[in-house]
Amino acid sequence: MPPRTAPIGVFDSGLGGLTVASAIAQALPGESMIYLGDTARVPYGTRSPATVVRYARNNAKFLAESGIKLLVVACNTVSAQGLGGLADGSDLPVVGVIRPGAQAAIQASAGGPIAVLGTPATVRSEAYLHAIHELDPHRTVHAVACPLFVPLVEEGWLDHPVTTLVAREYLAPLAGTGVDTIILGCTHYPLLRGIIAAVATEVLGREIAIVDSATAVAAQVALRLSTWERTAPPGMPVQHRFCVTDAPDRVGAVAARFWGAGSLPPFEHVDITDHGAGGVKVS
Amino acid sequence: MPPRTAPIGVFDSGLGGLTVASAIAQALPGESMIYLGDTARVPYGTRSPATVVRYARNNAKFLAESGIKLLVVACNTVSAQGLGGLADGSDLPVVGVIRPGAQAAIQASAGGPIAVLGTPATVRSEAYLHAIHELDPHRTVHAVACPLFVPLVEEGWLDHPVTTLVAREYLAPLAGTGVDTIILGCTHYPLLRGIIAAVATEVLGREIAIVDSATAVAAQVALRLSTWERTAPPGMPVQHRFCVTDAPDRVGAVAARFWGAGSLPPFEHVDITDHGAGGVKVS
Repeated sequence: MPPRTAPIGVFDSGLGGLTVASAIAQALPGESMIYLGDTARVPYGTRSPATVVRYARNNAKFLAESGIKLLVVACNTVSAQGLGGLADGSDLPVVGVIRPGAQAAIQASAGGPIAVLGTPATVRSEAYLHAIHELDPHRTVHAVACPLFVPLVEEGWLDHPVTTLVAREYLAPLAGTGVDTIILGCTHYPLLRGIIAAVATEVLGREIAIVDSATAVAAQVALRLSTWERTAPPGMPVQHRFCVTDAPDRVGAVAARFWGAGSLPPFEHVDITDHGAGGVKVS
Repeated sequence: MPPRTAPIGVFDSGLGGLTVASAIAQALPGESMIYLGDTARVPYGTRSPATVVRYARNNAKFLAESGIKLLVVACNTVSAQGLGGLADGSDLPVVGVIRPGAQAAIQASAGGPIAVLGTPATVRSEAYLHAIHELDPHRTVHAVACPLFVPLVEEGWLDHPVTTLVAREYLAPLAGTGVDTIILGCTHYPLLRGIIAAVATEVLGREIAIVDSATAVAAQVALRLSTWERTAPPGMPVQHRFCVTDAPDRVGAVAARFWGAGSLPPFEHVDITDHGAGGVKVS
């Protein structure tokens, strides 16, 4: 069993998961982290399920071998595919991004319909729908695919008329639905929170709750570490590592945008060579 | 040496190269083709040069082993990196997308500055700049990175107010430059030809030439086959194969959009397993 001083491992297909890592660092400033962005193989959303599972296992194996105490799958595509089976037979607790988001939305909602904004792959997976229905089988869920939000964030158009126009187009079908809570179901979307909130108010005629799955994941991680008595000891020196599988010199500006506050150390380049589909155990 | 009846091989990182394949099919209706889209590893533009070269070699090897007579690299990222070295030591003629586009632009232009629209990776590579300067060392070239055009095409917003707004933002810096020719330096952009032409007229105050590198590549392929006496014999039955490295069942609508006229046969799934960086010969 890993010691309390061990780091938390976080992976995503790319850099978007840094919004989740950043939320964890804010909620748990005494914990160390290893972040892995699989930039050599991003994006996962367009890959077949078998390929996504294979990539997820490569990432989890690297982090497990680095001695982590808890694994955060900060990738919606992997989380939506049952965490890629990573929790199965693993000694490590595994936290994905779907269930914490669904739980937080149920808590934030006054009982009305919930809208989930996500990539086409996340929406197609119906993972949020199933997670919400596990908690409340009769809740109405509106899933909205927003394929242009990720490229708009990566272009840095966080406060741009085009982004507002795109948000209006995507949210228009929510008019008259009575939705009272929106889940930002993609790690990139917290950066568009302001525009999404403003357009949602416009479309729905009143202010509604916006649930950011990054914050919900951080709360879930805190809870799991505490339940499991694996919270870092007070005064432990905190050290984060940031790794990518390709082009560490190119991540700078985009990574900083996702991380938000404070400066990032240089990214390390790591090789998580893909030895095929079978036989990789997480723990 | 491959027979005249052999197919032409075309690869791209994804499905955008189908605009090039389609232009070849229209220009050379008597030729057979094998198209390979590396959908398991798309996009290439964000990868490191070493990774791009490795992927390009995997693709070229698959096509060479399928018995092609000419290789078309319908991928701007690979073409911009000196065709990934694929032509080096190969018996197969190799045609990329950069030089034919540059040549066509010089022919279409009345001698004024030329603008190149491309992805950030293509613009960063300065490949069009160098190709144009090889033909005319004193020509002014304006390169414009248009990162949102690819996602807009993939979203199918080919005739949408948002796309016009984005085009206006990207083309605004061309005002007053006297540009008389624009190169569509990405395989996705021919689908935005109408909007780009309209906005360019608006910004530059007059109609200008729009050069589509897909058409230019098709002309170059015809020339190479003719010079090399490898044009298909008249009356040869034409058969195309369309292959992808992942998720052949998901390519439908997007592929049809790029291919344009006529129906596409089902895509085959092929495995071009990556055995590492070294030692793969194209011919």
